[in-house]
Amino acid sequence: MRGQNPSLYKTLVSHYKIRMKKLFMTLVFATLTQHLIAAEDLVEKKEFQLKSYKTVSGKIIKNLRIGYESYGKLNSDKSNAILVAHHFSGTSHAAGKYAQTDATPGYWDSIIGPGKALDTNKYFIISSDTLVNLSPNDPFTKTTGPASINPETGKPFGMSFPLVGVKDFVQVQKKLIDSLGIKKLYAVAGPSGGAAQSIEWAATYPDAVPRVIAVVPPGLSLPPYVISLLNLWSMPVKLDPKWNKGDYYDKEAPVQGVAESLKMITLSAVYLDWAQTFGNGPAQAGKDPLHSYDHKFAAEAALQARGEARAAMIDGNSILYTARAIQSFNVENNAKKIKAEFLFIPAQYDLIFPPEVAMNASKKLCTLGRNSEVFVLEGRGGHLDGLFKIAGASEVITKFLERPLGSKGICKN
Amino acid sequence: MRGQNPSLYKTLVSHYKIRMKKLFMTLVFATLTQHLIAAEDLVEKKEFQLKSYKTVSGKIIKNLRIGYESYGKLNSDKSNAILVAHHFSGTSHAAGKYAQTDATPGYWDSIIGPGKALDTNKYFIISSDTLVNLSPNDPFTKTTGPASINPETGKPFGMSFPLVGVKDFVQVQKKLIDSLGIKKLYAVAGPSGGAAQSIEWAATYPDAVPRVIAVVPPGLSLPPYVISLLNLWSMPVKLDPKWNKGDYYDKEAPVQGVAESLKMITLSAVYLDWAQTFGNGPAQAGKDPLHSYDHKFAAEAALQARGEARAAMIDGNSILYTARAIQSFNVENNAKKIKAEFLFIPAQYDLIFPPEVAMNASKKLCTLGRNSEVFVLEGRGGHLDGLFKIAGASEVITKFLERPLGSKGICKN
Repeated sequence: MRGQNPSLYKTLVSHYKIRMKKLFMTLVFATLTQHLIAAEDLVEKKEFQLKSYKTVSGKIIKNLRIGYESYGKLNSDKSNAILVAHHFSGTSHAAGKYAQTDATPGYWDSIIGPGKALDTNKYFIISSDTLVNLSPNDPFTKTTGPASINPETGKPFGMSFPLVGVKDFVQVQKKLIDSLGIKKLYAVAGPSGGAAQSIEWAATYPDAVPRVIAVVPPGLSLPPYVISLLNLWSMPVKLDPKWNKGDYYDKEAPVQGVAESLKMITLSAVYLDWAQTFGNGPAQAGKDPLHSYDHKFAAEAALQARGEARAAMIDGNSILYTARAIQSFNVENNAKKIKAEFLFIPAQYDLIFPPEVAMNASKKLCTLGRNSEVFVLEGRGGHLDGLFKIAGASEVITKFLERPLGSKGICKN
Repeated sequence: MRGQNPSLYKTLVSHYKIRMKKLFMTLVFATLTQHLIAAEDLVEKKEFQLKSYKTVSGKIIKNLRIGYESYGKLNSDKSNAILVAHHFSGTSHAAGKYAQTDATPGYWDSIIGPGKALDTNKYFIISSDTLVNLSPNDPFTKTTGPASINPETGKPFGMSFPLVGVKDFVQVQKKLIDSLGIKKLYAVAGPSGGAAQSIEWAATYPDAVPRVIAVVPPGLSLPPYVISLLNLWSMPVKLDPKWNKGDYYDKEAPVQGVAESLKMITLSAVYLDWAQTFGNGPAQAGKDPLHSYDHKFAAEAALQARGEARAAMIDGNSILYTARAIQSFNVENNAKKIKAEFLFIPAQYDLIFPPEVAMNASKKLCTLGRNSEVFVLEGRGGHLDGLFKIAGASEVITKFLERPLGSKGICKN
């Protein structure tokens, strides 16, 4: 082109330069603007402490601490607080970023923020780390559990840490809420294990919980199938010889067992489609998995990579403790005490808690005279759709939160 | 009554004695008859040998042997043979009993027998053990795999045994069929991994397979999700330190790893309902799982018992080899060669191969101009319904086997 028509070339180059200059200015402006917005909205991890806490089983945990973060502002009469509880392998980082450079925001960022379903212009969202959280080594997670130092020995508790249940998670959160002067929440919400906590809140503190949003939830108790499944999620940690009955904090950690556990959790939490993109071929071209056992299929290698990516950050004993806590979830006998209205949001292809689990729980609450409805999240992402597709329920959540309590005839299962 | 009417009493006693005598004679006759029938119908395990077999990957297996059993009689023109292939943890024991005292008959006994769907009055059913079968220690299973003695070393192969694929399973079965003088099968059928073999048969030997009955089947290739799942089924064996890279035949076997693997297989193969009967309570009354980590929930203990019950009989390395074989199943590129007509029978709540997997495969075969239909087994037993609820498909199977080949318009997905 250049040889053919020099003047056209010059025109194009000139045009290109102007466009590049415009583009550059736009980028600079955008970056500055973004920084200005971000500086105000960056999330801060706070810490809540208890000198002593007595577990449901009657054991004492001293110097208990958990992390929490909040989004939006608590109003003057402290009536606009929504507590968000996290899932099995999650943390309290539900929305926003700690720093502008963070690759991704918190797990429910698509529904927490100004104008979003959990609208921070209206509500004060508070999200807390659980006890025995899986990520005690994550600098942004604050928890108390088997990896914590036992003040009496100066060494990590390991398996001598008291066992706790979902009810303990909730009782500690209640003390956090109390410390902020909040007598009654506007709602409690959470996905998966966070849904279990939300339902436990409604059963344990019926007067403090008028609304529950239970996403990819168990029913009113953990399905016994999932009690078994959590046994399997825990198994690789215990089978790893480096677990050493939980005594590994001054040795090599059972990272391989943790990685295998995370692989299982991942595969339980997705559906067929997740692996489809990896196809039926080998992980490496030319390395046929029928030629050597060391050769892998692409779909196994992808799962392996997912497990290993987070393994170093996750504590093996804390997997066992969190699994046991979730296994214990059961409010069937306290269901009559519940006063809250419920919005259950199961995911269509959830292999852990298929939608029928939520539907049965919702029917039971309706039978007990509570307002309860089910909205099934569409999508082929399985259990994880409770995180990644939750925006699909934004409108339903907004309406649920705005609906006057005690409205007649709300029973949609 | 006696004091009131002695004559009536005598009449009644006399009547009762006659009835008891009749009942006794009936029982004696029935027992004798049953024994006579049983003696004729008891199943015998036979053995097929090959001096040398070359695997798909080009390795040589010497002195190969696999077991097989048959039910019914091969007709004079050898045109009534139906091959049955077994599932992942199964054996060739598809029907009948080895001894009158056996607790249960073979896995598909409800559809194999006189007057049943695979009618032994009409068809000669032949069922073969796979290579690398999980149960080399079971006296009724004959297989060649990692637990077999390497003739060159006089010691078990361990992980030095050649890797094999589903296609190898099928190629060995073809040689067995050839040895019986059968040129063309009437049909091939099997559940799960057996369905994979059936489909592989149709793709590898299109002229020998006019009909396929694929129960709780993969599609035309293993869904990559299940490639990942099989990686997890294999994992506990490898994580058990006693596995020792497959070298354990003169030491303690990795029984714990095998038990954990069998627990995973069990939980993958059932649905929510399986565990429901165990409830949310502890395994032992008064032993609260939140009081000691050693206390278990009933649902975990039940799963544990299931895993441990079979662990001693199952070989760890053979789990790895069978998993790899099933992972390799893929006839997508040979689908056009298939001449068979298909009956897919998925199970409604199958978590391993949900019905849509069969439906997609059936649609593809229809697109290629083959007759193919899908019948969904109703039931809440999950993948295992392919074994325990298969009688629910009896009528459909009978019609499929009796329908003239090449009937027009058979395309029901």
